Amino acid sequence: MRENRLNKLKEKMEEASIDAVVLFSDSDIKYFCDINVEGVFVLIKDEVKLFVSSLYFQKAQEKLKEDAVLSNSLDNIIEYLQSNKIKNIGLDFAKTTVKQLKAFEGFNIIDFSNQTLTIRAIKEKEEINNIKRAALIARNALLKVYPTIKTGITEKELADELAYQLRKNGAEKEAFDTIVASGPNAAYPHHKPTDRKIKEGEFVVIDFGASIDGYNSDTTYTFLIGEKTDELKELFNAVFYAQLFATEMIAPGRTTAKQIDARAREELAKRNLDKYFIHSTGHGVGLDVHEFPFLNPTNDMVIQPNMIFTIEPGIYIPNKLGIRLEHMVLVHENDTEVLAFAPFVEAM
Amino acid sequence: MRENRLNKLKEKMEEASIDAVVLFSDSDIKYFCDINVEGVFVLIKDEVKLFVSSLYFQKAQEKLKEDAVLSNSLDNIIEYLQSNKIKNIGLDFAKTTVKQLKAFEGFNIIDFSNQTLTIRAIKEKEEINNIKRAALIARNALLKVYPTIKTGITEKELADELAYQLRKNGAEKEAFDTIVASGPNAAYPHHKPTDRKIKEGEFVVIDFGASIDGYNSDTTYTFLIGEKTDELKELFNAVFYAQLFATEMIAPGRTTAKQIDARAREELAKRNLDKYFIHSTGHGVGLDVHEFPFLNPTNDMVIQPNMIFTIEPGIYIPNKLGIRLEHMVLVHENDTEVLAFAPFVEAM
Repeated sequence: MRENRLNKLKEKMEEASIDAVVLFSDSDIKYFCDINVEGVFVLIKDEVKLFVSSLYFQKAQEKLKEDAVLSNSLDNIIEYLQSNKIKNIGLDFAKTTVKQLKAFEGFNIIDFSNQTLTIRAIKEKEEINNIKRAALIARNALLKVYPTIKTGITEKELADELAYQLRKNGAEKEAFDTIVASGPNAAYPHHKPTDRKIKEGEFVVIDFGASIDGYNSDTTYTFLIGEKTDELKELFNAVFYAQLFATEMIAPGRTTAKQIDARAREELAKRNLDKYFIHSTGHGVGLDVHEFPFLNPTNDMVIQPNMIFTIEPGIYIPNKLGIRLEHMVLVHENDTEVLAFAPFVEAM
Repeated sequence: MRENRLNKLKEKMEEASIDAVVLFSDSDIKYFCDINVEGVFVLIKDEVKLFVSSLYFQKAQEKLKEDAVLSNSLDNIIEYLQSNKIKNIGLDFAKTTVKQLKAFEGFNIIDFSNQTLTIRAIKEKEEINNIKRAALIARNALLKVYPTIKTGITEKELADELAYQLRKNGAEKEAFDTIVASGPNAAYPHHKPTDRKIKEGEFVVIDFGASIDGYNSDTTYTFLIGEKTDELKELFNAVFYAQLFATEMIAPGRTTAKQIDARAREELAKRNLDKYFIHSTGHGVGLDVHEFPFLNPTNDMVIQPNMIFTIEPGIYIPNKLGIRLEHMVLVHENDTEVLAFAPFVEAM
């Protein structure tokens, strides 16, 4: 159990006048209880109960106090809340299904969404170390695969080799399905690797991450195979400088998420490429691959020390090419640090 | 677009007096539209609209008609429904979040849960072939790894090697996180592979699957390392016969899911081992690893031809050992077929 984290949750509950919070998210359970199980987390005052299925019962009892673990059913949860005379219940509306909600009829339900994500956005030392470790594993895996990124190899072969090297270098698994997209396929931001062979004169986008003890990395590299023509160099450098300047402008405690997003767009607009930048600029990374803060055109959240998020501008020209560069930024008191910077990221 | 599948959906909509169905599940989208994207599926009469983010826009437009693809936001979806004068909307309460539900205030909302899962429980020829292919890939991968399952190798090394062989043998990825659990670790049904080395005289449980074009396999094997003592043989055979008899008793069109579950429990009870069988007997497998039909003590669903599900009895003795045997069963008109039967599954 993580007492300091639970204290932050209790503060949020008090602010919202909530007697009990019920969380259905496995990454929230991992965060507050330091255990990897599927289940339901209930906090009333100082008491945590974890409702888990028989698949996880023994494991949960060994990790938590024995009487903190109960059998997982909506009926059991409701009975427990009633026996504690609970009236006001906080539910994360973004992570609770309608079916689950229906079980809570008769209680006063309060929207508790964004609360745990807000707490989790500020990473603790131990979490930072875990994410740094994941980032380093990912970089080392890519260094092993790097010599094979050349004409003739297929997207899927590269993705398979990267999956293998991630594990060999210490990952438990991939953080998410690896994207390897070559030539015109790279115009799809979330392309699934195919048997297409990489050709001369193409960009290859590789987006991948390592997962270790629940924590993730998320980075993207774009390689140009063969001759660097002026046109391709200019496109690549536009994305490179969008990423660079968006990263460098961050003033901890002052810059907002949407300002970073705007800075990346501004840089691409100088070359009239912003119309090809069809997604947001970044997202927090931690127990979930996508979490707070989200760097998009509307988010006013102020960037704070100990946040970790991606900066990932890209351009996608249909039927032609795609380029994306994504790194993870750790925010310090006065400056920022790019995690596990790789030697092959530079302006062309 | 899969017209025959859409027709089944329209029938369900008519039965429930629904003007529009809104589905937030990616596997439902894959099923009805034959496309791998994240998004929201809306069906009104004969018209499908897919609301996707810019990440998937180009891909969706190429696969569907161009005007069938719209930008994904709850506001856009509501506007579309209003412009069509829709009143009664079906939502799958088990796959819709409270946040999503809130957007539909003002409409008449009808619980449409279980409907797509019921349709998807009966597999088409093409789906059966995909699942058979996944099962065969998984079996072939295990055959490659089989010689290394011996004392000295760690759980994680085995899991990593299996992940590698799954891909080498044609899988796009693992269907789910592979379980390799040795000795006392096998008493946790959902154990995560560790650096623990496999020892003489232990059971090793390997639960894994292949994913190919959206379809999955799910099988579990238990190997005894070293000497087969009478005690261990008896435990293994109890699980083996529970699986065998539960599989053999199936009469298509007559047997219910709970009868199969009861048959497995009955066999274990003969040896007083049913108290160690702490989960349900099986589940359907398809676009989701866990889908209809669920084989548990309460499900009255009748087993029908072209269903595919697992039968996976197990026993878990805390601090001592675990045994689980899981195969996939395809139901024919008059009998059943075990998919990709592996040569190392036999009574000891």
